[in-house]
Amino acid sequence: MHALDKYSALIEQEIGSIDFPQSPSNLYDPLRYFMTLGGKRMRPILTLMGAALFGAERNSAMHAALAVEVFHNFTLIHDDIMDEAPLRRNKETVHTRWNQNIAILSGDVLFVKAYQLLAMQKGEHLPALLEVFNKTAIEVCEGQQMDMDFETRHDVSIPEYVEMIRLKTSVLLGCALEMGAIIANASKEDRHLLYEFGQHVGIAFQIQDDILDLYADPEKFGKQVGGDVMSNKKTLLNLKAMELADAAQKQRLEELSKENDLVLKVAQTKELYSHIGAKESCEAEMQMHYTIAMNALHQIQLPEENKKPLIALSDYLMVRNS
Amino acid sequence: MHALDKYSALIEQEIGSIDFPQSPSNLYDPLRYFMTLGGKRMRPILTLMGAALFGAERNSAMHAALAVEVFHNFTLIHDDIMDEAPLRRNKETVHTRWNQNIAILSGDVLFVKAYQLLAMQKGEHLPALLEVFNKTAIEVCEGQQMDMDFETRHDVSIPEYVEMIRLKTSVLLGCALEMGAIIANASKEDRHLLYEFGQHVGIAFQIQDDILDLYADPEKFGKQVGGDVMSNKKTLLNLKAMELADAAQKQRLEELSKENDLVLKVAQTKELYSHIGAKESCEAEMQMHYTIAMNALHQIQLPEENKKPLIALSDYLMVRNS
Repeated sequence: MHALDKYSALIEQEIGSIDFPQSPSNLYDPLRYFMTLGGKRMRPILTLMGAALFGAERNSAMHAALAVEVFHNFTLIHDDIMDEAPLRRNKETVHTRWNQNIAILSGDVLFVKAYQLLAMQKGEHLPALLEVFNKTAIEVCEGQQMDMDFETRHDVSIPEYVEMIRLKTSVLLGCALEMGAIIANASKEDRHLLYEFGQHVGIAFQIQDDILDLYADPEKFGKQVGGDVMSNKKTLLNLKAMELADAAQKQRLEELSKENDLVLKVAQTKELYSHIGAKESCEAEMQMHYTIAMNALHQIQLPEENKKPLIALSDYLMVRNS
Repeated sequence: MHALDKYSALIEQEIGSIDFPQSPSNLYDPLRYFMTLGGKRMRPILTLMGAALFGAERNSAMHAALAVEVFHNFTLIHDDIMDEAPLRRNKETVHTRWNQNIAILSGDVLFVKAYQLLAMQKGEHLPALLEVFNKTAIEVCEGQQMDMDFETRHDVSIPEYVEMIRLKTSVLLGCALEMGAIIANASKEDRHLLYEFGQHVGIAFQIQDDILDLYADPEKFGKQVGGDVMSNKKTLLNLKAMELADAAQKQRLEELSKENDLVLKVAQTKELYSHIGAKESCEAEMQMHYTIAMNALHQIQLPEENKKPLIALSDYLMVRNS
């Protein structure tokens, strides 16, 4: 993906040039540290691609692109506190390396930084940019709250689960693209179609993530295969399995959730999920969202040629690690 | 203060009409609870007064006024976590009544709500409003970080302390006023003067707060007199006392900081502070900031008559509980 690498390098360079003050160092050192931990930088790339799709200069959307990435990093810093996660991208999280109060406050200041970057876009676009950005930011918080609520609930339905991943992660992809479209003065209808494309690619991507956690090739997968099963995390695989299982299979899944031999637990759960048809059902749901995404993109009245970078990016996202 | 009561009632009514969704209830119940805990609502009143000063319809600045109040409440929710405060306005804090994760996340969503309210102001004012609001939000976080850093530092200077209270609390008063002035299309110079007025009234008010903590009439003071001394909190009184004390007095202050009899500790510290001249020195510093504030206000080229509500509000703030 040569084109993607070029976009990534551009974003990385711009992120490196974001200027944080020296003092108070306990507020800004964590941000200098966290913003350069890397990552795929998919969201800002989407904003630049969204602008380019409608013929705008790629760089005309750079501030908005950085705002999306900075916002995303703010949510990661706060989510890591809530999830008590010690590591992010194999490095210490902010609350682990500094402390929790510093993680709360440096997250807050990073959130303001996102708005400062957004406010650097032309004034004529600001109201529309703020509208989609604010709405999305609230939805991301709602998704995170639903995810936390799910931890202690035993009656989570599949539609609720999909709604949670839509809010927690997918709307931000739609928002990133739509902000590019706004800056390129696209019509409201095209903006909406591009948002839908991003949102459904995002849902498909998250479902793939659930599948890969158990079915990825351990050689290619960046983290431990079966982690979700080991920790009895609610995932689409798990919910689909419980929905499709007969009484005996349900009982066996219950037993497996209490199994202490983790290697056995993962192997047998995987086999049972496949047997029940949970994997196929997840793949069908993933495919459905991918198709909705592509349909939305095709409805945008532009030469298909222009859409190739976005399709290439989606294809890249949808086959990683598998 | 009949005029002030009218402003307060208006703000209270508007806050009551802010519509939070029902779901996820763990995200929005805390906000419904916290936003109606009351308070003086000084900040939004300043925004309305700032707009009225330059002849704008008071209600034309209502969204910005609410944005300031909502932002202030967001900072309180997060500060209460960091300070491990069980109570706020004699009611349980959000992290105590719900839990810490909910307090982090509902705070975050309240912060977005502030931007949503701000974005409801006319598009022509948005860039200028965002500029002062973003700058101030970052400064408030910096002030909170300095305050936390001071807890473990033994070399805090008086200018550093004043800078901390300026950032943590005073800049928001300046910002609140300036946003009103922006909406009323005041000149940049007048906006700046009004900001300076608010900022220095804020510093004077905070210094008064430090003095009152020890010297207030217990009958009229809302909280326990001497609380800062009991907990060895760094305040301007304390820093001034250490600066002005001779060697023997310094040693006595050191001993008093370890005194277990809290009634004795407060009484003797108070006597020593007065003897050293710390109280007078604080009062002089407070008076200086009040004078700077009034000078800035007087420089605004408007009939003095128009400024009366702001002067009345400052006078009200500066004599409370004493």
